[in-house]
Amino acid sequence: MKSLLSLGKEELKNELSALEEKYKEFKARDLKLDMSRGRPCREQLDLSMGMLDDRQYLTEKGVDCRNYGVVEGIPEARELFARLLEVSPDEVIVGGNSSLNLMHDTLVRAMLFGVCDGCEPWGRLPKVRFICPSPGYDRHFAICELLGIEMIVVDMKEDGPDMDAVERLCAEDEAVKGIWCVPKYSNPDGITYSDQVVWRLASMKTKAPDFRIFWDNAYFIHHLTDEEVPLKNILKACKDVGNPDRVYIFSSTSKITFPGAGIAALASSAANIKRMVKLISRQTICPDKMNQLRHVRFLKSVDNVKELMKKHAAILRPKFRLVLDTLEKELGELGIASWTKPKGGYFISFYSMDGCASRIVQLAKEAGVTLCEPGATYPYGKDPRDRNIRLAPSMPPPDELKTAMELFCLCVRMASVERLLKDN
Amino acid sequence: MKSLLSLGKEELKNELSALEEKYKEFKARDLKLDMSRGRPCREQLDLSMGMLDDRQYLTEKGVDCRNYGVVEGIPEARELFARLLEVSPDEVIVGGNSSLNLMHDTLVRAMLFGVCDGCEPWGRLPKVRFICPSPGYDRHFAICELLGIEMIVVDMKEDGPDMDAVERLCAEDEAVKGIWCVPKYSNPDGITYSDQVVWRLASMKTKAPDFRIFWDNAYFIHHLTDEEVPLKNILKACKDVGNPDRVYIFSSTSKITFPGAGIAALASSAANIKRMVKLISRQTICPDKMNQLRHVRFLKSVDNVKELMKKHAAILRPKFRLVLDTLEKELGELGIASWTKPKGGYFISFYSMDGCASRIVQLAKEAGVTLCEPGATYPYGKDPRDRNIRLAPSMPPPDELKTAMELFCLCVRMASVERLLKDN
Repeated sequence: MKSLLSLGKEELKNELSALEEKYKEFKARDLKLDMSRGRPCREQLDLSMGMLDDRQYLTEKGVDCRNYGVVEGIPEARELFARLLEVSPDEVIVGGNSSLNLMHDTLVRAMLFGVCDGCEPWGRLPKVRFICPSPGYDRHFAICELLGIEMIVVDMKEDGPDMDAVERLCAEDEAVKGIWCVPKYSNPDGITYSDQVVWRLASMKTKAPDFRIFWDNAYFIHHLTDEEVPLKNILKACKDVGNPDRVYIFSSTSKITFPGAGIAALASSAANIKRMVKLISRQTICPDKMNQLRHVRFLKSVDNVKELMKKHAAILRPKFRLVLDTLEKELGELGIASWTKPKGGYFISFYSMDGCASRIVQLAKEAGVTLCEPGATYPYGKDPRDRNIRLAPSMPPPDELKTAMELFCLCVRMASVERLLKDN
Repeated sequence: MKSLLSLGKEELKNELSALEEKYKEFKARDLKLDMSRGRPCREQLDLSMGMLDDRQYLTEKGVDCRNYGVVEGIPEARELFARLLEVSPDEVIVGGNSSLNLMHDTLVRAMLFGVCDGCEPWGRLPKVRFICPSPGYDRHFAICELLGIEMIVVDMKEDGPDMDAVERLCAEDEAVKGIWCVPKYSNPDGITYSDQVVWRLASMKTKAPDFRIFWDNAYFIHHLTDEEVPLKNILKACKDVGNPDRVYIFSSTSKITFPGAGIAALASSAANIKRMVKLISRQTICPDKMNQLRHVRFLKSVDNVKELMKKHAAILRPKFRLVLDTLEKELGELGIASWTKPKGGYFISFYSMDGCASRIVQLAKEAGVTLCEPGATYPYGKDPRDRNIRLAPSMPPPDELKTAMELFCLCVRMASVERLLKDN
């Protein structure tokens, strides 16, 4: 194989015909494969089945988890998350099964009640803007869109968001009230923020005194290799530089135990947590403490969680390897694409030539492979260069994944040749 | 015993001295009893322990409940609630462990997004008012207070809210956007709305075209006697009279299985449900489907739920009996109080002489018995006549309940005599 970029028009036409033949064969196979979302596979879920054997309903201190009460989560669950996130227990609340729910509700509360006592509710301001390092997580963007918060795209670099741009935006514009971050093994690029980036986020000057970092630490312990990429503790950094209330940290066990039936946590300054508990106590009487207790008794300790995560990694690694190997083999020398090689998290971020991603997704879809919607990794679903596709290798069995990736690479080649012919 | 109202000043003084002596004895016992909230007792929770033996994670159609997805709740859970609430499955969504959470979020959404596509968000209006039949449920009122919704008290009558007042308010004032109802075995009065009241609520003219009934059907199947007091189906009534989208019905298994770890449902017109699902899909990826499946497989059918509720009633009935008997014995002939004799639900609603409730609660508290906060059953915590106290007999063991009720009656007598002396 050689770079497609060096081919002449006739060669490209011949190449396209050959690719279209192969594509027809795929189509005839009537595939129905899904690589659209970061869903753990069945083998991963089976790792936590032991959790269901537990009939205990009393906390260590004898609180009956079946009954009402304890809106902030049971002490042992707060303790476990405190250890996992390296904060103190009074800086954590543990909720229901969804960290997205905590994020959504935190932003809704900021709109309705402001982020501190005496702070102006964001919903009363003429304009609220959020910085969205992109590519990023579509569900973050969807919440902003729902609430009418204007999203400003900032590029992702090797070590996190483009901090020069972030600092400039925050310093100049009082309407810039927040930033979305997936700081560890980011969705979709797999990037972990450097200490310097974390420090700049914690310490930067913001024109809005009530600026908040929405720190979605979804993959805080989700390593794929033996290397545990470190992430600087942002709550500590915020406290150290005198901005203790700046950050909301979100996390969950969704990709540790059960994606739909895990437990989620919010960590922040004790002052923020105290205010949040007051507001949440108007929303609900308590989270599902039975599920919290079940989790704590199953997960036990940070070390034990790490052991469990190694088992997840052992299942995921061959799938990531298969995707990366197929990309390398089918596209490695063609000069038409690049992709990330993550050390953790759930995604491989794929970059085609400009203007090809939508076409690739469409081609794959028509042949039975569902990929992430084109543009999904950017605010408003608009990838300005139409080139990023988030690949999620976790869910399909290896043989299906292999087929899906072969088709994917074929679609990339077709779309690229089509584009080159058009530009010729 | 004779009516306290017939006593002269000296007799009252002697009576008070005698009561104070007894009160001192109670105080010396260092009690720590709680009748403040409708919490089921341990024996009730034990009825559902079988639910925890279940390790199944696949729905009938093979959906893995451990994983992400199915934001509206699993089909079999929607089906069960549809049967329980006498609506169709596409008129129900099943959520997490808290119906209060569904109510809060539904009201928050009305404030932010309005109640229909194209409807004005209530939060943008200069004023939003809610009708609050009172006495009622403090947590409903707390949500309104949180959101700055002005509450208008309407009296409760034998068969539901004072509908003449409700109709007048709705017809005259466009700012009146909703009403809170606990239509069956109401909190705290134990009243079930008559067919006529349900029909008037469904069909009344409202100046606000986007008026909504928040129908908290918390005790829909929670009978205390063999008589299953019927309640007219309000969703059907709304549809029959051409107001299909007027009502949101809330319910849960909190007092069927586990109060803190049950499942909650919202029923409404299919159109309302469809819009709600769209909004909820921005908030969360899915509810805890494992707990839904666990519930469906344990609860099985409407008939089976009814059998389970009979077991609850068998535990609760003697406690209600004990409270009623003590009230009758200690206060029955004194002419200073009245109380409800509910056929279902969780409360006995107690009415003292005007201006005595706060004092009674305070006296009880100082002697170690926690009652519902005075005024809690009215908006803004303000009982205009300071006379209603919600008694919750479910939680304490019978011997403790007996002690608590003896003290309560003593406090009622003390406060009443104090009041009579003051007025003399």
